[in-house]
Amino acid sequence: MTYRAPVSELQFLLRDVLGYGRVTETERFAEAAGEMTDAILTEAARLAEEVMAPLQRAGDLHPARLENGVVRTSPGFADGYKAIAEGGWVGMTADPEHGGMGLPLTLATGVNEMMHSACLALALNPLLTQGQIEALEAHASDEIKATYLPKLTSGTWTGTMNLTEPQAGSDVGALRSKAVPNGDGTYAVSGQKIYISWGDHDVAENVCHLVLARLPDGRAGTKGISLFIVPKYLPDEAGNPGKANSLRTVSLEHKMGLHGSPTAVMEFDGATGWLVGAEHGGMAAMFTMMNNARLAVGVEGLGIAEAATQKAVAFALDRVQGRVPVEGGTGTILDHADVRRMVLRMKALTATARGICLDTALSFDMAQATGGEEAKTWAARGAFLTPIAKAHGTDIGCEVAELGIQVHGGMGYVEETGAAQFYRDVKVTTIYEGTNGIQAMDMVARKLMDGGDAARAMLAEVQATADRAAGSDGALAPLGAALGRAVEAVAETLDWMLGAEMNDRFAGARPFLTAFGHLLGGHYLLAAALAGDSAERVALARFQIMQILPGVGGLCLSAQQGAEPLYAFPADALTA
Amino acid sequence: MTYRAPVSELQFLLRDVLGYGRVTETERFAEAAGEMTDAILTEAARLAEEVMAPLQRAGDLHPARLENGVVRTSPGFADGYKAIAEGGWVGMTADPEHGGMGLPLTLATGVNEMMHSACLALALNPLLTQGQIEALEAHASDEIKATYLPKLTSGTWTGTMNLTEPQAGSDVGALRSKAVPNGDGTYAVSGQKIYISWGDHDVAENVCHLVLARLPDGRAGTKGISLFIVPKYLPDEAGNPGKANSLRTVSLEHKMGLHGSPTAVMEFDGATGWLVGAEHGGMAAMFTMMNNARLAVGVEGLGIAEAATQKAVAFALDRVQGRVPVEGGTGTILDHADVRRMVLRMKALTATARGICLDTALSFDMAQATGGEEAKTWAARGAFLTPIAKAHGTDIGCEVAELGIQVHGGMGYVEETGAAQFYRDVKVTTIYEGTNGIQAMDMVARKLMDGGDAARAMLAEVQATADRAAGSDGALAPLGAALGRAVEAVAETLDWMLGAEMNDRFAGARPFLTAFGHLLGGHYLLAAALAGDSAERVALARFQIMQILPGVGGLCLSAQQGAEPLYAFPADALTA
Repeated sequence: MTYRAPVSELQFLLRDVLGYGRVTETERFAEAAGEMTDAILTEAARLAEEVMAPLQRAGDLHPARLENGVVRTSPGFADGYKAIAEGGWVGMTADPEHGGMGLPLTLATGVNEMMHSACLALALNPLLTQGQIEALEAHASDEIKATYLPKLTSGTWTGTMNLTEPQAGSDVGALRSKAVPNGDGTYAVSGQKIYISWGDHDVAENVCHLVLARLPDGRAGTKGISLFIVPKYLPDEAGNPGKANSLRTVSLEHKMGLHGSPTAVMEFDGATGWLVGAEHGGMAAMFTMMNNARLAVGVEGLGIAEAATQKAVAFALDRVQGRVPVEGGTGTILDHADVRRMVLRMKALTATARGICLDTALSFDMAQATGGEEAKTWAARGAFLTPIAKAHGTDIGCEVAELGIQVHGGMGYVEETGAAQFYRDVKVTTIYEGTNGIQAMDMVARKLMDGGDAARAMLAEVQATADRAAGSDGALAPLGAALGRAVEAVAETLDWMLGAEMNDRFAGARPFLTAFGHLLGGHYLLAAALAGDSAERVALARFQIMQILPGVGGLCLSAQQGAEPLYAFPADALTA
Repeated sequence: MTYRAPVSELQFLLRDVLGYGRVTETERFAEAAGEMTDAILTEAARLAEEVMAPLQRAGDLHPARLENGVVRTSPGFADGYKAIAEGGWVGMTADPEHGGMGLPLTLATGVNEMMHSACLALALNPLLTQGQIEALEAHASDEIKATYLPKLTSGTWTGTMNLTEPQAGSDVGALRSKAVPNGDGTYAVSGQKIYISWGDHDVAENVCHLVLARLPDGRAGTKGISLFIVPKYLPDEAGNPGKANSLRTVSLEHKMGLHGSPTAVMEFDGATGWLVGAEHGGMAAMFTMMNNARLAVGVEGLGIAEAATQKAVAFALDRVQGRVPVEGGTGTILDHADVRRMVLRMKALTATARGICLDTALSFDMAQATGGEEAKTWAARGAFLTPIAKAHGTDIGCEVAELGIQVHGGMGYVEETGAAQFYRDVKVTTIYEGTNGIQAMDMVARKLMDGGDAARAMLAEVQATADRAAGSDGALAPLGAALGRAVEAVAETLDWMLGAEMNDRFAGARPFLTAFGHLLGGHYLLAAALAGDSAERVALARFQIMQILPGVGGLCLSAQQGAEPLYAFPADALTA
């Protein structure tokens, strides 16, 4: 069983469900229209299937390791990375001025899904570089851009993000790393950073660290933090890697999964760095890349969900246990109702994550390609959807990977099968780039600061889908009605949130986010059924609306309980 | 952070919530009353905390391995096993006639919870032996009993169960292993068995395999299967291990978790075995131990849930990130509403699993200690609760372990913390001893063959708790009303099940089982609040009923959709 990239599904979704044509009709993305999109998806599919998927298990079995201060990556990863870089995939969305392809984020999201399905541990490397490119494009000086962007875009150098410190995880403002001006325009950066994905490796000639640190006059908290670019090797006059910088890889983490991705503890000891963006403006610079990075992590959940589903389906279609007299059955365990239920749940959840992630990306493309009020509305839509894409997308990744093991039975618990690796690999996606709890807090706080406008606009889109279905003939009509009822429940909870104290919102944030995610699942799957009208699309929409959407009512009720009940449990009784 | 056995919680539950006094008031279990129960729990707690918990990580880091045909277990496991055996714990529930302690299963379930929390990989060994003891007590000849039971009860020898073959997993009837009479009362047993937990090891002097195989005249399917005991070393005339039998360990599985428990592929090549029970009566013999084994696996989920909760709480109380102005707060991340929510969810789910498991065990004790109609009613109650204890208990184990990682944030994904090990270890419990899907099918088919009597009696018990709460003053009254509404929803779904075709039941079996599990959670937690009336018990009941129980309505709706929607998705579109 090997991974098969869902190219035609992506094409259908983009073209017939999400209105991707609106993106390529803009001047900004005109080049990505029609055949170009098909060619990109087809070529990325080939890379994912033929180059990356064969590396998936090697990365797990032979983790990256630290030897004499140097990280040696998993067998085959260097060649795999080379293929990614040579194909131009690192610079997919980067500015053509520095060698990028300038593709829409929507298309890049489809490509990322495939890469994440095939080999997430390796795919993280170009993904991190993409984030760095974005930050430099938006905030770096022309000189830095000229030095770094061509190297990063071509994949000759790679990028990392250095935020976390042992005492500063979700609370970034607690960081202690320092940056002292050297007097020559550079800074001496010192401090220890942890959880640095691809912090060191042997697949490219230089590693460029974006490091958050505090200037001597930087005040406490997030408002005193600045951003620096700190390369492993200092560029010489010709722009090639020169003298080694004062930084080192202290150790690699022994993680539950993603063994092929080296997660480093980095020590900066007066390392030479250059300021990116304004002094004390580090968090603002981080935030520009944060939304896309969060979306990208949601896509990681999606990618693993798709791969886990494919593996489970292939296993189920090959496995015979017991007999069920089902007309037109497969003769395999897929004829058992509960196995069908699991597989359809995997497919419905995966399709949900795909719809949310692509639609979020599309919002950002439209925000970039349009202007004025229209751009603002699209940006707000993307910003609102982002925590849902991240948290619900990765929750889905975990649930689908778990179902994947379950479909395999005992074989799922044996590592050779590969189902367990998905389960181990995907779990970190609910944690990094802001835990899913943080995403939910972001959703009910920052993302409702517009008085709920973006949320209500999204609910109106879902209602429109419900109305279209309700007004249609046949099987989709009752599904439209059910989706409409779920919209009401979520809208009512939204109103409750808007009227509630902040900690009461936080108390219900997770169930609210999940409810909204399920609602969007109904929206995209029903829209797909309306657009495609094939037996499987209708059946999948029906499954989502009858088996998953009914959970929305309970989640909305839970979301409105407020914080008081949580604190009624005495803290000193927690350890009793 | 080390594991602390919840002795006082178990004592409270047994005494004040579950009516364990009814067990020790019987003649059969009179010796287990009062101080005896306390002494057993205290002594088991000491073993779990001091001897077993320190082995947990060693088992994970240094898996059992096969060397020249012999299994070498993890460092320290041999000594740990010795302590378990010498303490008499292997024979906890065994007949005193052969050296057992003859304790109630309810009490043994409390002890098992602690052992599973401390080190599940090691605890599996005595657990399997307990199952074998039970099977031999019920079905073996006096001669076999006399030879094996004293050795097994004392832990001098250990026991395994050999059911699964590559082509015969959930479908046991498809097995191909053969047994041919040798003419001297013994049988030559041949075949390959997989997933044999503790199939070989170096912690005791003999390994006794209970093997399902087909006699020459055994017909196809489950009705042609017989049960044999096949020891690694044939007992000599003095009853000591003599000549090696014709069997071998082919390989050990490379599993996602439970590394300390060797999972063997066993090859029997004309090995000498003795029939246990009637010819072709193997499945019946297996079924007598199946209920208890399934309960025991539910307790595995419970044990890991408790341990994961303790670890997460200890971490959270030690971790400072961000500031939340909460009056009387802890100054740690536990002041964040979402962390509180996660921790209370872990505690509520764990308490649910504990209530269900102990109450199931109590049913079997009462069935054994009473007679006539009363015994039948208790047996039916235990039989009905068993699939819920197994499936909901292990689902809870998985969810709580996942929340445990989430509470730890990035640290949860790093293996040194131990949270990830729980997550990896517990997953197999949803698979073995009948997948959770099989449990749900058992619940809606076999366990409703009484026309729903046992289910309705259980619902009446929940309703009685709801009524008691509804009739009380203060905070518990509205909780009683909410629980009563959930009883109605489940009762209505039960009626639907009873009127439905079998495959329609199967299609909704999983959501129905989960709904019933949540309902029982409300029942036990509310009963505990009524009995204990402490702030934390009231708060936990309130959390369960306001945050978890609201899911019951949606689950009941999903449970009643029937099979047709599952088959409406064309099988050939599954791979598209």
